[in-house]
Amino acid sequence: MPLTGIRVLDLTRIISGPYCTMILADLGAEVIKIEAPGEGDPVRHQGVVRDGLSWYFANYNRNKKSVTLDLYTAQGKEVLADLIASSHVLVDNYRPGVLQKMGFGDERLKALRPDLVRCSITGFGPSGPYRDRPAFDFIAQAMSGFMSLNGGEDDPPMRVGPPISDLVAGVNAALGVVASLLRRERTGQGDTLDVSLLGSMVGLLSFHASNFFASGSVPSRTGNDHGLVAPYGLFATADGQVAIAPSNDAMYQKFIDALGLPMLREHPDFETNAKRMRNRPALKALIEERTRQHDSAYWITRLNQYGVPCGPVLSLKEVFEDPHVQSQQLAMDVPHGAHGPVRMLDLPIRFEQACRGSPRAAPALGADTEEVLKQLGKTVPDIEALRSQGVI
Amino acid sequence: MPLTGIRVLDLTRIISGPYCTMILADLGAEVIKIEAPGEGDPVRHQGVVRDGLSWYFANYNRNKKSVTLDLYTAQGKEVLADLIASSHVLVDNYRPGVLQKMGFGDERLKALRPDLVRCSITGFGPSGPYRDRPAFDFIAQAMSGFMSLNGGEDDPPMRVGPPISDLVAGVNAALGVVASLLRRERTGQGDTLDVSLLGSMVGLLSFHASNFFASGSVPSRTGNDHGLVAPYGLFATADGQVAIAPSNDAMYQKFIDALGLPMLREHPDFETNAKRMRNRPALKALIEERTRQHDSAYWITRLNQYGVPCGPVLSLKEVFEDPHVQSQQLAMDVPHGAHGPVRMLDLPIRFEQACRGSPRAAPALGADTEEVLKQLGKTVPDIEALRSQGVI
Repeated sequence: MPLTGIRVLDLTRIISGPYCTMILADLGAEVIKIEAPGEGDPVRHQGVVRDGLSWYFANYNRNKKSVTLDLYTAQGKEVLADLIASSHVLVDNYRPGVLQKMGFGDERLKALRPDLVRCSITGFGPSGPYRDRPAFDFIAQAMSGFMSLNGGEDDPPMRVGPPISDLVAGVNAALGVVASLLRRERTGQGDTLDVSLLGSMVGLLSFHASNFFASGSVPSRTGNDHGLVAPYGLFATADGQVAIAPSNDAMYQKFIDALGLPMLREHPDFETNAKRMRNRPALKALIEERTRQHDSAYWITRLNQYGVPCGPVLSLKEVFEDPHVQSQQLAMDVPHGAHGPVRMLDLPIRFEQACRGSPRAAPALGADTEEVLKQLGKTVPDIEALRSQGVI
Repeated sequence: MPLTGIRVLDLTRIISGPYCTMILADLGAEVIKIEAPGEGDPVRHQGVVRDGLSWYFANYNRNKKSVTLDLYTAQGKEVLADLIASSHVLVDNYRPGVLQKMGFGDERLKALRPDLVRCSITGFGPSGPYRDRPAFDFIAQAMSGFMSLNGGEDDPPMRVGPPISDLVAGVNAALGVVASLLRRERTGQGDTLDVSLLGSMVGLLSFHASNFFASGSVPSRTGNDHGLVAPYGLFATADGQVAIAPSNDAMYQKFIDALGLPMLREHPDFETNAKRMRNRPALKALIEERTRQHDSAYWITRLNQYGVPCGPVLSLKEVFEDPHVQSQQLAMDVPHGAHGPVRMLDLPIRFEQACRGSPRAAPALGADTEEVLKQLGKTVPDIEALRSQGVI
């Protein structure tokens, strides 16, 4: 596995950081998750909890070890220093400056571990006027411009359902860590890297940003329609609706052939894409008159035969029942002791050689405290003393 | 830089693949983009084109070299074989099997370069019933369940504006390549990896998937409201609206203090989150009565003082004028010869040590053909012959 033998000290909670370290653990790293004694990561109690186990927590903390440690005590900080010295990577998602206030500023970290790869995930970045603001996925979606591109033309800007800014920041952070580990492997040097929720969302603005930079014209929302191409979008069928994306003129010609509406080709209102954009509602009505005559399955088969990109809009239930999704093994069952198998999303990157082995269940709070402390040279009486003082 | 000295052969076009190789180039790799003679990547002609340059193309193809090569000719295939033998990484976003049909199946690739890291980006993955279907961002959004989570409760499922599935597949692919390069550095072995648009989108379903797996209950759309917490969402102010995310009870208490509405604390309709969810419209009306009395700037300052996550919903113009966004240098100007500086999005990962140097402009079509062919041992007459035959 790519990260076999790499130890990651994980000072993260909630989702952006834990997603980053989940990826590192999936890639073979030993991830030691530090949690507050008695409490732990708040996600342990979030989402649907089944027989005392949050399946949301189980997903994002698989393959990790859990060590409890009170970082507000002098003894806890001493253990943390030992852990940093024995780790290759440190990931945190504290607000900027928190680690420094705890006594672990850049110089101390460097002294403890000169080749440390240190990754910080924040809401707004390590500097700038908003650096100390509390952050949240919804706020990053709003302030990045991402929301301004979602929703119907006449509707308010629309948030995305999944916590997209946490997830994209998490994968960016994992990429940065792995790139830094490669550089470390080749040069012996560590590095410090930063990823923010806001920056990660701005990074997704894509051609909307390019077009704005080139033209100065602010893009508007177009709902499920395409800003530049018609027809395109959701079309009603006899039993639902189908997403159809004939993104250029050649595809449009195939689309009207598949519909059996070749008369559209010569129709003065629909001859060119510009005319089709102007007469979009009339064209959509003509197309839907046709698509309503058969069910979605019929159209999906037929349009694909003609090479027109299309597909159903699936609910989560339909997604995981879909034979193709099942064939790709995008979800997996991980044995969780008495909880039995827990279903979760797999990493969407498939390696032929770098075999991942069997995934291990997310740890109970503090499950690995003793083992990890013993590795640091602590004796059983040391550990008992720390436990009785509430440090671990 | 992490990927200094790594050569990436780039057989991708449009956006998922070019985003992956842009990241690899940003991290220091030498990326050789293969394009069809005379045509090139279709994105060269897409988006806003200014003085003959697509700023969309310029963004996603910075720091790369362009080599024209007709892969349908025997001579073109010969050059391709030489290029593969001299590269560490091969990235393609052809449909499954296309590279094999060209004569570059897995065994041939292995023979040409035993330690090759080979990454394939497809719409639906390398196998399964839909593997040969034409793919498109919109279709991946629809079929992954992602769209089913976006939009208002009573509205149809809503697509996201940016091409999110291409972008997330691109960053997943870059992560997989860098991880494989790290494994190669440590073991000497190459690998083959796959990333799909559909799988990358399913990978974003997050706690919605966990909750569905744990409960069997299909999540519904909640627009800008939170599925489990109220108040939460967009609130009208004197001059617009503000996104406010008090995600737990402690934050709610701070929120009503910041609003100056402490009477809500004892109000029988709003005492608990469960009651606030039931009486969401009435609560929102009471809050907006208050928030409409001041402008958005007032509320953003005040709510942040109280520690309540909040922010404005910004348009692209406002985003790039925002002093904080500017302080984080999320956009940059890259000199493009006679075109002058071209503004584009920077990589949202910041390294302290791994300095990126000055970014180089996206190449003109075939700009580096001669240089790269000479490195392969071709003479000037060889190159002239290939050019006159239309191979390059």
